Amino acid sequence: MENGLVISLDGMGGDHAPNIVVEGAWLARKKYPQAKFIIFGDEKKIGPLIKKHPGLEAVMELRHTPDYVTSEDKPSVALRQGRNSSMRLAIDAVGNGEAHCVVSAGNTGALMAMAKFVLKALPGITRPAIATYMPTKVAGHGVVMLDLGANVECSPQNLLEFATLGGVFSREIMKTAEPRIGLLNVGSEQMKGDETVKGAAELLEAAAHLPGKYIGFVEGDDISSGTVDVVVTDGFTGNIVLKAIEGTAKLLGSLVKQTLFSSWLGKFGTVLCLPGIAIALPSFLSLKKRLDPNHYNGASFMGLKGLCIKSHGGTNAVGFANAIGVAAEMALIQFNKKVAQELESMGIGSGSPALSVTEETVPA
Amino acid sequence: MENGLVISLDGMGGDHAPNIVVEGAWLARKKYPQAKFIIFGDEKKIGPLIKKHPGLEAVMELRHTPDYVTSEDKPSVALRQGRNSSMRLAIDAVGNGEAHCVVSAGNTGALMAMAKFVLKALPGITRPAIATYMPTKVAGHGVVMLDLGANVECSPQNLLEFATLGGVFSREIMKTAEPRIGLLNVGSEQMKGDETVKGAAELLEAAAHLPGKYIGFVEGDDISSGTVDVVVTDGFTGNIVLKAIEGTAKLLGSLVKQTLFSSWLGKFGTVLCLPGIAIALPSFLSLKKRLDPNHYNGASFMGLKGLCIKSHGGTNAVGFANAIGVAAEMALIQFNKKVAQELESMGIGSGSPALSVTEETVPA
Repeated sequence: MENGLVISLDGMGGDHAPNIVVEGAWLARKKYPQAKFIIFGDEKKIGPLIKKHPGLEAVMELRHTPDYVTSEDKPSVALRQGRNSSMRLAIDAVGNGEAHCVVSAGNTGALMAMAKFVLKALPGITRPAIATYMPTKVAGHGVVMLDLGANVECSPQNLLEFATLGGVFSREIMKTAEPRIGLLNVGSEQMKGDETVKGAAELLEAAAHLPGKYIGFVEGDDISSGTVDVVVTDGFTGNIVLKAIEGTAKLLGSLVKQTLFSSWLGKFGTVLCLPGIAIALPSFLSLKKRLDPNHYNGASFMGLKGLCIKSHGGTNAVGFANAIGVAAEMALIQFNKKVAQELESMGIGSGSPALSVTEETVPA
Repeated sequence: MENGLVISLDGMGGDHAPNIVVEGAWLARKKYPQAKFIIFGDEKKIGPLIKKHPGLEAVMELRHTPDYVTSEDKPSVALRQGRNSSMRLAIDAVGNGEAHCVVSAGNTGALMAMAKFVLKALPGITRPAIATYMPTKVAGHGVVMLDLGANVECSPQNLLEFATLGGVFSREIMKTAEPRIGLLNVGSEQMKGDETVKGAAELLEAAAHLPGKYIGFVEGDDISSGTVDVVVTDGFTGNIVLKAIEGTAKLLGSLVKQTLFSSWLGKFGTVLCLPGIAIALPSFLSLKKRLDPNHYNGASFMGLKGLCIKSHGGTNAVGFANAIGVAAEMALIQFNKKVAQELESMGIGSGSPALSVTEETVPA
């Protein structure tokens, strides 16, 4: 693999693929001019799209495959029957060292199954996890949360590993000097929670090395309060909490809309507000950006030997470009190398023969 | 216990007790003119407050105790040492048949421990649960969710019982003709989730009788979508999800505020909006009411032989009045009798000698 930044793309994954994949890559080039792309999928559909975007043809290699994974495919079926799918080939490109990272907006379960199968877990990591970052009350301050659904049942050891992965992400990608790592629980007192979180708390308290500082148990409302940088939880709780948060944001938006247009008086008042809203527009747009799921798009599968980023299935091109951005940042800072170093300091995974830089997919 | 409606109040529980308790009862009297109250706590503090509210003295009996449970007390300590606390005596009044229900804004853990100890579980219910109702996208349509933290670990049987309790609440209190009951999970497909939810799904599918219709697995974003009436989950997930939802609502509020006042342009635009907002005020106020946590105040401890309602600790008098309203509604429809009938139809708890109307604390 040449030096630089090579990003592998599942051209057929997502509700609006391949359009948003090609346009997203084109948008991402503005921030990452050094990036090159390998895109997998139907050449008849993707070829013309590449040509439409000036300058893209020179940096995007199209590899044809007629197969793709649908959003309805079961992960096990996709894994068995999808060896020639655009998703699988895109992951393979990371596995065989052609690309530094892969981005897909396709079927999450299939992507996770394929990525685990092809890329394998980093030495010292027993269970890879899905992580994302979200806005908090504190301006400019996001929070990383994991696992978001890769593992419905977790051991204390798994949670310790998630804390390490999330800590490295917060420190290296979000530039938090000393990430505050919290364990999601039903209360902050020591006796709270089930055996898993209590066991994880013991491991975290006893850990000689952590990429951050363990601050103890945190509760559901701490996720958005800005008082914690990394929220660690099992994939069952994390997945439900993430979707509940997304649902609440949608609920509030729809309530405001219902209110503004529910009565003639409401409508008239709303119309009177328009000049004010127009003047305040830049502020509203910055709010929209802070809340836009596309802005926070890009969930990472952490703990694999290769970098794999999942975009929201319904994302637009800007959102897909953001997911590419997450992949690019993780590749450029050599995320997996940093994790491996961290695990070694912690006495986990060190000396394992499988841990060698040549097997890593991030560039040297 | 005389016919009618007697409500027992923990006069000293909550951040703003006893003021909000006394004023809340006074406000609740407007909707429930038949209600009588027994209030427990410091007579020097509570006595003058009762006198301040016209007409309250005639319907509110004050019973003095100098003891009270603080928000820092551990449940086990409160249970052992708080036998004379206002909280405990208020619960005792339900246990000994003097009152139909008890309302407290005090320490949740202590209230739950005492209520379980004094009131005991209904026959057929192995684990009482905490439930609340929340707004959804569909106007006028709330959702009941349980358990919210009484049981961090649950069996499939516990979840089946929660479904029954929630179904009766939705049908009888929220007047849903046939409540749609969903199990909270990481996906809607049958193979998703851990053994507990899968086991609970089997029980719910096999249940000959349910106070509603089991619709299968639901996800985090379904809680607010209005597509389900009762969301059943374990207390670990439920507690974290509830607090995450509250945190998200606060986050969005604070982001809007930051946006409106973050720049001079934003401020100027906001000022220009004021006349419009004034005209749309009734709509905004109805939104505020729909979102106000005080409006949705009152979590029920369901599955106990007596009715016990927990108010938010930080609530105001209006919120406390709403919690009293939940207690009153549950007492008036004889919630526990309805649950007992339901459990009998389901073949759970029937024929148990402990199940007799005389032991029930709701009026005949």
